Amino acid sequence: MPYNELRKDYLLNRWVVIATERSRRPTDFAKPKAEGAKSAVCPLCVGNEHMTPPAVMLYLKGNGEVRVSKDPPAGERPRNWLVRAIPNLYPAFSPPKQAGDEQQVLQSDCFGYAIGEHEVLVESPNHDENPADAALPQLELVVNAYMDRLRELSAKPYVKYVSIFRNYGQEAGASLSHAHSQIIATPTIPATIQEELDASKNFYDKHQKCVFCDIVEKEVQGPRLIYENADFAVFAPYASINPLEFWILPKRHASNIRSLTKPEAAAFAKTLKASLRALKDLVNDPPYNYGFHLAINQEAQDYYHWHLEVYPKLSIWAGFEKSTGIYINTVTPETAASELRKSLKLYTFE
Amino acid sequence: MPYNELRKDYLLNRWVVIATERSRRPTDFAKPKAEGAKSAVCPLCVGNEHMTPPAVMLYLKGNGEVRVSKDPPAGERPRNWLVRAIPNLYPAFSPPKQAGDEQQVLQSDCFGYAIGEHEVLVESPNHDENPADAALPQLELVVNAYMDRLRELSAKPYVKYVSIFRNYGQEAGASLSHAHSQIIATPTIPATIQEELDASKNFYDKHQKCVFCDIVEKEVQGPRLIYENADFAVFAPYASINPLEFWILPKRHASNIRSLTKPEAAAFAKTLKASLRALKDLVNDPPYNYGFHLAINQEAQDYYHWHLEVYPKLSIWAGFEKSTGIYINTVTPETAASELRKSLKLYTFE
Repeated sequence: MPYNELRKDYLLNRWVVIATERSRRPTDFAKPKAEGAKSAVCPLCVGNEHMTPPAVMLYLKGNGEVRVSKDPPAGERPRNWLVRAIPNLYPAFSPPKQAGDEQQVLQSDCFGYAIGEHEVLVESPNHDENPADAALPQLELVVNAYMDRLRELSAKPYVKYVSIFRNYGQEAGASLSHAHSQIIATPTIPATIQEELDASKNFYDKHQKCVFCDIVEKEVQGPRLIYENADFAVFAPYASINPLEFWILPKRHASNIRSLTKPEAAAFAKTLKASLRALKDLVNDPPYNYGFHLAINQEAQDYYHWHLEVYPKLSIWAGFEKSTGIYINTVTPETAASELRKSLKLYTFE
Repeated sequence: MPYNELRKDYLLNRWVVIATERSRRPTDFAKPKAEGAKSAVCPLCVGNEHMTPPAVMLYLKGNGEVRVSKDPPAGERPRNWLVRAIPNLYPAFSPPKQAGDEQQVLQSDCFGYAIGEHEVLVESPNHDENPADAALPQLELVVNAYMDRLRELSAKPYVKYVSIFRNYGQEAGASLSHAHSQIIATPTIPATIQEELDASKNFYDKHQKCVFCDIVEKEVQGPRLIYENADFAVFAPYASINPLEFWILPKRHASNIRSLTKPEAAAFAKTLKASLRALKDLVNDPPYNYGFHLAINQEAQDYYHWHLEVYPKLSIWAGFEKSTGIYINTVTPETAASELRKSLKLYTFE
């Protein structure tokens, strides 16, 4: 039938109109690069460590090897770091200030306190070393840092979820241009993740199988596959709500990234770099957001499956999306995959 | 306790961090006005009617009165219009192309066809006559046109919901700068509205009262009230997800705007103009989206209560919001209300 398609997300009750009648080629989205509003002094660059709070975790240059300092001496701000996690100066969530506070997060069914953690993960001493261009060994350190921070934060008694995400480009909400991610630990499980947990548990109870394992099996054989290797599959999800959206799913079932093996972490870094590079080359280095979806609660380990969702910021969610929850996407996921696949093939792996 | 607040929406399972620790004054959001990318020729201006499909509804200048043409002669494109509704050239939803198609909207639980309607409502012959500056008689025509289109579209057998919304400014997704709204009729009830319907029905079953009537009664007495008159209340909602967000609720219970009285429609136009004018004056004419929330199904008439939500576009939803569904708002609704109240008081009603 000659209509736009309505598609529902694999798990969420989230519908999108795949607007093929107003469809656009991915390259239509390429925009001239705006000159970034470079602040005179970057607080995340080497030499400016005094501008940020002392790190809570440091990867330091040693004698030819990387030294991890998980509990740096209070107040010290060494300059020989490779990756560092620092508290956000303006935290959305902050740690308990006195014993017992963490018991009182929810005061009613509509009011509570934002107790948790909010960190900035500085990904490199090099201002512009974003994942699409980073040297692989450096990006592997970033992935390791994600794992380290997740282990550390998810062990805290007041933490029920850890959101690891990245904003790239001013239009995607990055207020600093230095390569960095953010990590927010929350005292409740966020609504989007809870809806995924519920739906994947339902699927598991019905089919004795992880729904994401099922999705990977199907998507690697279909038109939405962008790239795969032994450990990961990259594809445009069936009900993408953004033009050129893609997800990275591990082939080995795991509910979070706490226990990735060293080769898996390296493979993830490579997969992340290759796919972000494909996006960058295809549409002139666009802004994007990415976020890990994962579960840290023990009972979800069989039915939930961690993954990374990458949302290029190429369109604007406007009045319709904001008042209905229905999205309109003018690039079909199949076209997105085909273009990103071609772009990725031109990239030579190191 | 010295923490940011976590607040839940009145109805939706949607939480926001009211980030007072990183709080900003509303006037911090005032930005120099970007020069709008004016297209050489505006397809919505008088004289360019040939650039758009013929109108499906016209309000025409008559002999000192407005003549409504609900079914204009096919192919005619008169120029003496005051308000006109035209089919969107690139519709997200489109009408059934043959009998029976509308029976087949949903093909499975994750796939369907976007059968419906998608119209552009041109609000004035004057390119820049947006609600904050419009003459009240003209804005009353716009409100009447919303009512007329809702009556017309909601009577179609394949329509389950009608979304009436407005995008103002490029950053809020308006691709044309001529004063206009959009109307999308959908073949299913959108997720956000369904969640509100379910929650308000629950409240009604429990308390034999409309939850929105309850909200109005409370908010008009509290610190989040911005403005009220005999027919409407304007307030910053308790769990605002946007800086300077405000809602307009009618005091008389009604589930939609099909049966507003003439004085109510005039009062709504006045209320809309005054509150958008207050926003414009406060932060230098910012971009915004607004959307009506309403119910057209008979059974919801007792428990659902129509309203308008106005979302100024002053911040960016980034990786955290997009991957968790938790929002961060750096202006407290109480501050927003106080500033908008002051700004509104400076405005002289006609």
